[in-house]
Amino acid sequence: MIIGTPYLLFLGDAPDQLAAKTADGIAYWRKEQCVGQIRLPGCKADTKLKDITLEQGKAAGAKTLVIGVANRGGVISAAWQDTLLRALDLGYDLAAGLHNRLIDVPALAERARTNGRNLFDVRQPDRDFAVGSGQPRSGKRLLAVGTDCSVGKMYTTLALEKELKSRGVKADFRATGQTGILIAGSGVSVDAVVADFISGATEFLAPANTADHWDLIEGQGSLFHASYAGVSLGLLHGAQAHALVMCTEPNRPHMRGLPQTKLPGLRDCIALNESCAHLTNPAARVIGFAANTSGMDNAAEERWLKATEDEFGLPAVDPVRTGVAKLADRLLA
Amino acid sequence: MIIGTPYLLFLGDAPDQLAAKTADGIAYWRKEQCVGQIRLPGCKADTKLKDITLEQGKAAGAKTLVIGVANRGGVISAAWQDTLLRALDLGYDLAAGLHNRLIDVPALAERARTNGRNLFDVRQPDRDFAVGSGQPRSGKRLLAVGTDCSVGKMYTTLALEKELKSRGVKADFRATGQTGILIAGSGVSVDAVVADFISGATEFLAPANTADHWDLIEGQGSLFHASYAGVSLGLLHGAQAHALVMCTEPNRPHMRGLPQTKLPGLRDCIALNESCAHLTNPAARVIGFAANTSGMDNAAEERWLKATEDEFGLPAVDPVRTGVAKLADRLLA
Repeated sequence: MIIGTPYLLFLGDAPDQLAAKTADGIAYWRKEQCVGQIRLPGCKADTKLKDITLEQGKAAGAKTLVIGVANRGGVISAAWQDTLLRALDLGYDLAAGLHNRLIDVPALAERARTNGRNLFDVRQPDRDFAVGSGQPRSGKRLLAVGTDCSVGKMYTTLALEKELKSRGVKADFRATGQTGILIAGSGVSVDAVVADFISGATEFLAPANTADHWDLIEGQGSLFHASYAGVSLGLLHGAQAHALVMCTEPNRPHMRGLPQTKLPGLRDCIALNESCAHLTNPAARVIGFAANTSGMDNAAEERWLKATEDEFGLPAVDPVRTGVAKLADRLLA
Repeated sequence: MIIGTPYLLFLGDAPDQLAAKTADGIAYWRKEQCVGQIRLPGCKADTKLKDITLEQGKAAGAKTLVIGVANRGGVISAAWQDTLLRALDLGYDLAAGLHNRLIDVPALAERARTNGRNLFDVRQPDRDFAVGSGQPRSGKRLLAVGTDCSVGKMYTTLALEKELKSRGVKADFRATGQTGILIAGSGVSVDAVVADFISGATEFLAPANTADHWDLIEGQGSLFHASYAGVSLGLLHGAQAHALVMCTEPNRPHMRGLPQTKLPGLRDCIALNESCAHLTNPAARVIGFAANTSGMDNAAEERWLKATEDEFGLPAVDPVRTGVAKLADRLLA
């Protein structure tokens, strides 16, 4: 799955900024690959990219109209359809990470076929995978792991990609979820592959590379999440990572979606991740922490980062507040 | 997926006994649910059930013709087709656990539709699942775990079901792979569900039950298998097991399909399985060992079982050679 760039971002009739968070992520991390945004009447979101028409986007070279908005239930709104059909007529591919698939909307499927265009439903793998081999491969890999879901693994790996590239280090973000795939233009939604192939899909996603190259693999879930740990373990084995970054949200009251379960302690979470990672890479180790401290004031954030660094002897950052330079230093040390 | 019984077993033109191992398993564990076998000219396998015709099977009440033979590549042989089509005309459902699906053979799909019969492709889940909740549920559950794939988890749980039932204990084997599903007549092939739903599918497979009831859940893979550990972990969390039986094959030179990887030590394998199981059932513990000692002579087998019992203070059996009474004793103690 390789989605053509540059993108034109479709925000539709997003009722608020949060509904357009996919578009926001793309505009933030891949601004240079976006020619503008399209908003329908009533749209309350704004990526701050230029508002342009489909025709202007085409003239600027855009190849794909990316649906960067999610409405309730993840369906493809009827209100969007005219724009999407016109885009196909103008030669755009369409890409979306919604629950409902573009390909399952008969009018879109038919128009894409007629025009010879692609519909990218990035939640669904578009190919089969082999089972994981566990065979050592060249190149270096970092995987973001976590105490829980939704603790900033994608943000952390994207920030590390930017930081490493700015230092002249060869590095690629490897997307494992739908927003990451739309940002990167390729990837595998590992939680959507057939269970037998989780680690194999990860081996495919981050293949052998040159010795001085880092793949920065977006993590998913947590070994301590009762719903998703299987995905996290297959990803950990397939990643064959040299370096793990432990992501967390301090003070989160319970595991996401599981009100009866507390988050694991950092020490337990490091121990289990390292121990399992050693199956396919005996050199794997946690090289630092990335915390989402958005629920803390500055003083509490600084206290938490300092205390964590002191306890573990490893760098601790909030990628949004402090950046990830300390993690990159450690990685390259 | 609930497959109608009794069965008539189809052995086709099996070139040797091993090719009919699914039929063998069904005849061994569910003899009372089989009315006979059907063999085509050239068949070299024999379950020792009566050879009967489709018509005789129907007269004996058979509801499903089970394809208990696998040929190279897991395809549905053209040589079988006449028999399968006639079975559908006579009112049989068909069930198979092959790689290629019955439903994908146009002639079979069409004939099943015309006759209003079911085609059970037990490798493929026939429904959607929720994500796992991790919520405690009533009833007791045992899960077979292992050092590797194919070390006797299905045999062990089926033997325990038989042993517990013979003692008047309420117990049900819960199948997680295709042969187990054909034996049990229901189940979920957990390695074929979408990765996000491994633990949810297991919660569905072994739901809440009365306090004195044991679900005996067939395990899959191993937490130490680089290809399949994600499935094993999701299964472990979803099973929410009180008791784990550690299955192994002593002296196996390397992990199945991974010549570069040795089997884990029993102590490490117990520690990781118990530690991960505690996420959804803090009472979970390994209650004994089930070894496939078919590669050992009697003296070596006895030495291994004795040494393992002495080292861990837990019963160790070979389900085929010694039976599983010691495991049942421990479970009910």
